[in-house]
Amino acid sequence: MIETGELVLLISPEGKRYLRTLVPDTTFHTQDGLLHMSEAALAGFGAVVRTHKGKPYRVMRPTLYDCIKGVRRATTIMYPKEIGYILLKLGVGPGRRVIEAGSGSGGLSTALAWMVGDNGRLYTCEKRPEFYELAKENLERVGLVHRASRFNIDIADGFPEEARGADALFLDVRTPWDYLEQAADIICPGAPVGFLLPTVNQISDLLRALENSPFEDIEVLEIMLRRYKPVADRLRPEDRMVAHTGFLVFARHRGLDVQEELPHVEDVAEVPQ
Amino acid sequence: MIETGELVLLISPEGKRYLRTLVPDTTFHTQDGLLHMSEAALAGFGAVVRTHKGKPYRVMRPTLYDCIKGVRRATTIMYPKEIGYILLKLGVGPGRRVIEAGSGSGGLSTALAWMVGDNGRLYTCEKRPEFYELAKENLERVGLVHRASRFNIDIADGFPEEARGADALFLDVRTPWDYLEQAADIICPGAPVGFLLPTVNQISDLLRALENSPFEDIEVLEIMLRRYKPVADRLRPEDRMVAHTGFLVFARHRGLDVQEELPHVEDVAEVPQ
Amino acid sequence: MIETGELVLLISPEGKRYLRTLVPDTTFHTQDGLLHMSEAALAGFGAVVRTHKGKPYRVMRPTLYDCIKGVRRATTIMYPKEIGYILLKLGVGPGRRVIEAGSGSGGLSTALAWMVGDNGRLYTCEKRPEFYELAKENLERVGLVHRASRFNIDIADGFPEEARGADALFLDVRTPWDYLEQAADIICPGAPVGFLLPTVNQISDLLRALENSPFEDIEVLEIMLRRYKPVADRLRPEDRMVAHTGFLVFARHRGLDVQEELPHVEDVAEVPQ
Amino acid sequence: MIETGELVLLISPEGKRYLRTLVPDTTFHTQDGLLHMSEAALAGFGAVVRTHKGKPYRVMRPTLYDCIKGVRRATTIMYPKEIGYILLKLGVGPGRRVIEAGSGSGGLSTALAWMVGDNGRLYTCEKRPEFYELAKENLERVGLVHRASRFNIDIADGFPEEARGADALFLDVRTPWDYLEQAADIICPGAPVGFLLPTVNQISDLLRALENSPFEDIEVLEIMLRRYKPVADRLRPEDRMVAHTGFLVFARHRGLDVQEELPHVEDVAEVPQ
Repeated sequence: MIETGELVLLISPEGKRYLRTLVPDTTFHTQDGLLHMSEAALAGFGAVVRTHKGKPYRVMRPTLYDCIKGVRRATTIMYPKEIGYILLKLGVGPGRRVIEAGSGSGGLSTALAWMVGDNGRLYTCEKRPEFYELAKENLERVGLVHRASRFNIDIADGFPEEARGADALFLDVRTPWDYLEQAADIICPGAPVGFLLPTVNQISDLLRALENSPFEDIEVLEIMLRRYKPVADRLRPEDRMVAHTGFLVFARHRGLDVQEELPHVEDVAEVPQ
Repeated sequence: MIETGELVLLISPEGKRYLRTLVPDTTFHTQDGLLHMSEAALAGFGAVVRTHKGKPYRVMRPTLYDCIKGVRRATTIMYPKEIGYILLKLGVGPGRRVIEAGSGSGGLSTALAWMVGDNGRLYTCEKRPEFYELAKENLERVGLVHRASRFNIDIADGFPEEARGADALFLDVRTPWDYLEQAADIICPGAPVGFLLPTVNQISDLLRALENSPFEDIEVLEIMLRRYKPVADRLRPEDRMVAHTGFLVFARHRGLDVQEELPHVEDVAEVPQ
Repeated sequence: MIETGELVLLISPEGKRYLRTLVPDTTFHTQDGLLHMSEAALAGFGAVVRTHKGKPYRVMRPTLYDCIKGVRRATTIMYPKEIGYILLKLGVGPGRRVIEAGSGSGGLSTALAWMVGDNGRLYTCEKRPEFYELAKENLERVGLVHRASRFNIDIADGFPEEARGADALFLDVRTPWDYLEQAADIICPGAPVGFLLPTVNQISDLLRALENSPFEDIEVLEIMLRRYKPVADRLRPEDRMVAHTGFLVFARHRGLDVQEELPHVEDVAEVPQ
Repeated sequence: MIETGELVLLISPEGKRYLRTLVPDTTFHTQDGLLHMSEAALAGFGAVVRTHKGKPYRVMRPTLYDCIKGVRRATTIMYPKEIGYILLKLGVGPGRRVIEAGSGSGGLSTALAWMVGDNGRLYTCEKRPEFYELAKENLERVGLVHRASRFNIDIADGFPEEARGADALFLDVRTPWDYLEQAADIICPGAPVGFLLPTVNQISDLLRALENSPFEDIEVLEIMLRRYKPVADRLRPEDRMVAHTGFLVFARHRGLDVQEELPHVEDVAEVPQ
């Protein structure tokens, strides 16, 4: 029995995939006829339901990978190979509060909202109204929009106050070096930040800006994924592959200044803990 | 103020990193003198505390990446580049129930336990007592052991009943093709499974076994990560890189058989929901 | 002044490229009108000649890369990235005698014939008549066919006697392990051999066969080439790349057996040198 | 019977490799005792000769790969993976005249001198006396120095007149953009040029300079080589690999200007051919 509001991946006999949130007593108009969502709910994950024309559709529980693949895109979207690594480097996980700018088509937003859970929060900022809308729609389709605070703002004016003290921040904007001060101001001291940059010139520009910033522990890298044709007796890589999505840069806020006077345990013994 | 039980990353003036769970009124013996953990708790993340010899230590909130890097290893451990992708393909996230075998040193266990949150569950199986112990210690150090049910068993005898209906499964064992039946039996219908294999011969063997199994939607791939020296005016890749960790194989349980008779909505209208 | 018989690369105003051997008093029918080859000869490399319609064509001296790109292909042809490495590993160069099987479309043949010069020799064997013809045509077009002895034979029956004592051998056939004996027999003792194999299963099969052969010093590798968009201010890799052409395997004939009785200098002092 | 002056690769019982030019009536002092070169000459390639202590040494004919591996280096030397591709792109081959600057340790010089044969010529320029010497020694050891005209000069003052009209040019210097004019002046019109650059900033600088130069047809790329452990039943890539040697840039001289008046065949009919 699938609960109302849960996300469902419907796979047609031809392998076409549809992501839908389960709303009982609704129907889904497939190419193969009508499909009753209540029937899908009752059948449960892993089951097969039939359209009114008798065509079998599989009911699957989508993975995060399925959700990212299902994003409708108006921009280049980040690939799972980058997103997975970003999650680890930013320490994303249940309960964390994460800021992202810009939202773009909402590919990374989907992953961040998925991983922070209902006790965490995603703050996603996007300047252009059309992407602001698109990211919202993509988050809605996968049932994750309630975990996101969305802002149609220009981060040049600062990040939203609501996001203050966030645990991590990711910038996928054209000139991230323009926003390092805003970034350092909004996150909690010591928090990790990440950047996606298509060109090497941008990496150089960002590295120069990071030198005079409160960020340290810098890592620059790229991730390549190569698929193989899954044929046991003629195993070989696929002929072509994606050669470049973007370069990833990571850094960590340096935290409070060492020069600052720090309280010692003796001095603070009376402070209630 | 850092809460008791939270994980803390302490960074020495020389950049050495220590992962510790915060227990108040304890001291941490550093190479630079004693450090009061209550003082660290009071200072908070991003702050600097001093040892009794006056040496400044940064108090940082560790990311998942930090935790995985901190794993004490007796085996080859999976790299973050693979782990990130696995999380997406298996649909790991808050509330999910995930099975893993073997535990190894606990590198992937750490990531799985981190991401499932307190409402999810990790079931991790390991045959060899020494790794069973090591994975436990590594999960303990990062404060995630309470999210894991650990089993010192041989999965040839089946996975633990407690794990039945799990949302996903990952096999990092030498002969995964020997356990496809057990895997299909324990997970929920339609669930994703993943495998890590060092050699191409193993891929072929696994692909052959998958052909006659209830798994489909097979993906074989490898992930390469290349770092750059972070120097703005002389930007270039590092001279050497890891060329191979292992190949990843993913598949999805086919779900219930299409041939099976399926209930139609009309028939089940009286079933209490 | 370009000499008769020399190879010429003609580049149209739109960048189309044509490889032609210079034969005086002939005309080349371009899309832009007739072009007098005597005029091209007179103008020389680097010059521009005009068709009878006045369209300018550049007259360039083709590189080996140009010649390989110009090969008309009915098979997958080897890429320059592999060919360059093969030349070095096989010690190909002016004066060397090299065997190749099969000829395929003649891509590698072109490079081998180019490099051995007029004092060296290429022996190229091909079983299928249609490829035997195609390779000939491709060698003819680039004016290198006179350096090649071509054989329309099945190497299962042995390599041609004419090739005996060759300095190197390359096998681009589906089951190279079937021909190791023939290979060891025809080349000079100690000579290098190379193989191109599309699948990993073939590598394993070949490695097994090499274990019980007079070949040693085995190297297995693959070469990847990634191009960048040549834009100074937005420098980045191209979006997609070739992920796989084939794996290369190299070995060296072990030479005469150590156990054999060898002449000592004292014994042979009288031999005229 | 190996001829005097030919290059010989001697392999010790432990697999140590020595490159020597064959000079009769000399002895080679190995770790395993004296070895008579006349004996090696008599035995021939592929044979085994014994030191005066009875230790067997194999006598092999070195490949170009062996020679490059044998270069004594004081600089980063180019790898065979790059060298092979350079040969194709520059159209190097028997009879060609090729310019190179700087000589460095002589790794690429070795390949160029090998491939141009006795009818071609290498012009190699090096500013620093110590590398000028080193490259000479490395070319001498492999018996190729007679094919090279070597110049201890600063190419800022122009390339040597002797090299005028060369067929190709390769620049492995820190600021190649400073020498584009000199390069365009010395090579024949339409000739290919190549560059090796370690950093991406250098690529950008070079691309900018090329925009205002008589060079076109620009290609920027990098080559990666991954080796596999040659074990049939446990076939897998090696754990680590070289991630970066340098980026390669290629271009072609545009040739004479289209605007120039060109002779037509009618006008030149009397010119003796």
